[in-house]
Amino acid sequence: MVVDSEPRVLKHQIVRRNLDAVLDGMAPGDPFPSERDLAEQHDVSRETLRQAIRELLVAGRLERRGRATVVAESKVVLPLAIGSYTEAAREKGLTATRILVGWSVYDADDALADTLRIDAGDSVVQLERVFTTGDVRVGLETTRLPAYRVPGLVENFDYRTSLYSEMRTRGILFGRVVDAIETVLPDAREAALLTVDARTPMFLLNRVSYDVDGVPIEQRRSLYRGDRMTFTAVMEGE
Amino acid sequence: MVVDSEPRVLKHQIVRRNLDAVLDGMAPGDPFPSERDLAEQHDVSRETLRQAIRELLVAGRLERRGRATVVAESKVVLPLAIGSYTEAAREKGLTATRILVGWSVYDADDALADTLRIDAGDSVVQLERVFTTGDVRVGLETTRLPAYRVPGLVENFDYRTSLYSEMRTRGILFGRVVDAIETVLPDAREAALLTVDARTPMFLLNRVSYDVDGVPIEQRRSLYRGDRMTFTAVMEGE
Repeated sequence: MVVDSEPRVLKHQIVRRNLDAVLDGMAPGDPFPSERDLAEQHDVSRETLRQAIRELLVAGRLERRGRATVVAESKVVLPLAIGSYTEAAREKGLTATRILVGWSVYDADDALADTLRIDAGDSVVQLERVFTTGDVRVGLETTRLPAYRVPGLVENFDYRTSLYSEMRTRGILFGRVVDAIETVLPDAREAALLTVDARTPMFLLNRVSYDVDGVPIEQRRSLYRGDRMTFTAVMEGE
Repeated sequence: MVVDSEPRVLKHQIVRRNLDAVLDGMAPGDPFPSERDLAEQHDVSRETLRQAIRELLVAGRLERRGRATVVAESKVVLPLAIGSYTEAAREKGLTATRILVGWSVYDADDALADTLRIDAGDSVVQLERVFTTGDVRVGLETTRLPAYRVPGLVENFDYRTSLYSEMRTRGILFGRVVDAIETVLPDAREAALLTVDARTPMFLLNRVSYDVDGVPIEQRRSLYRGDRMTFTAVMEGE
């Protein structure tokens, strides 16, 4: 079976390509020309121009700052890895920190108990944090840990630091990490916490980490902004 | 810094959760009740109901078949891997094949030449295929190879089979593969080729593969439907 290979190029895509080329010559933070000026310059309607701009926003080439549209910083490129993304970002020379959304302690339901290999009703500690790099909120991470493995965590852990380091300090070593990676749209709460438009595609990473004895130590749900993050994976072959 | 942790739950999200529970009890292919019936049943407006349905479509729990809305098959879960996704899908007992979009042979521009470590102007073979599993078009893959490495490929390669197998048969062994993973929205042509709504988040994998001598052998751009695919990654630790 062969399908028609002729690309149907739409007007806003031509405009987008031209704007991409313009952006190549600009620096992050530079103000982008007004919609009105650009529409006139490219001889297209405001709606066509707006469509091209929307695509550049979703692609992370432009960003809104209040009512202004400026050239975006490059995406943050991080390797898919066991360790802390805060630490990984800092190693790349980026500022990175965490904002606390909330702690909760509750009883595991059947599904969570099964994942963490504890009994339903056993106590679970949940930590929800926003991950920021360079003052941009790029991720929302919800970590769930069996309470018996991390006594005193809620009282003593500094949420701005790496939870992986904290676990290592407690003598818990990570043996194996399994990520299921999906793409989703954020719901209203997530969009608000990440200050992002609800039409922005996001990475959803559902992770289970195991210690060196193969016992699950965390279940983590992480949502990362697709317009701000690129993940890399390196695989060695035959 | 601490942010407000109180979730603002919108009406369509409550409806969505209820519909999620309803879907848990249904089988793939089952027809979903009409918007009118569901709106009445949940005592919400048609617009609220439609918003919940849109989210379930993007999440890959529902799918459109012509004018009908039916319960979707489970997502295809494939490991991020060097090898062929057709082969990986078949190993999981799924039917999987490729549809030819087109072959092209052209001169490398500076950027592509740099990636493939050839000279600008050197000949490149490009193969564009749609990857299907179970009759659903789930991915669009564009592979670019230095022509001198694959003489006769255009004339002799059966596009329905694995390009990795073909390379192995030619004595080219994959040493290392580097993926950059992004999420994007499809453009109009991509949405048409994958028969998907343009608001559906997609995985974009930009891959460079190297042979065992560290020489680049392919540059590949793959777009996979976020509503149909989940990737998994397993990492071994300390």
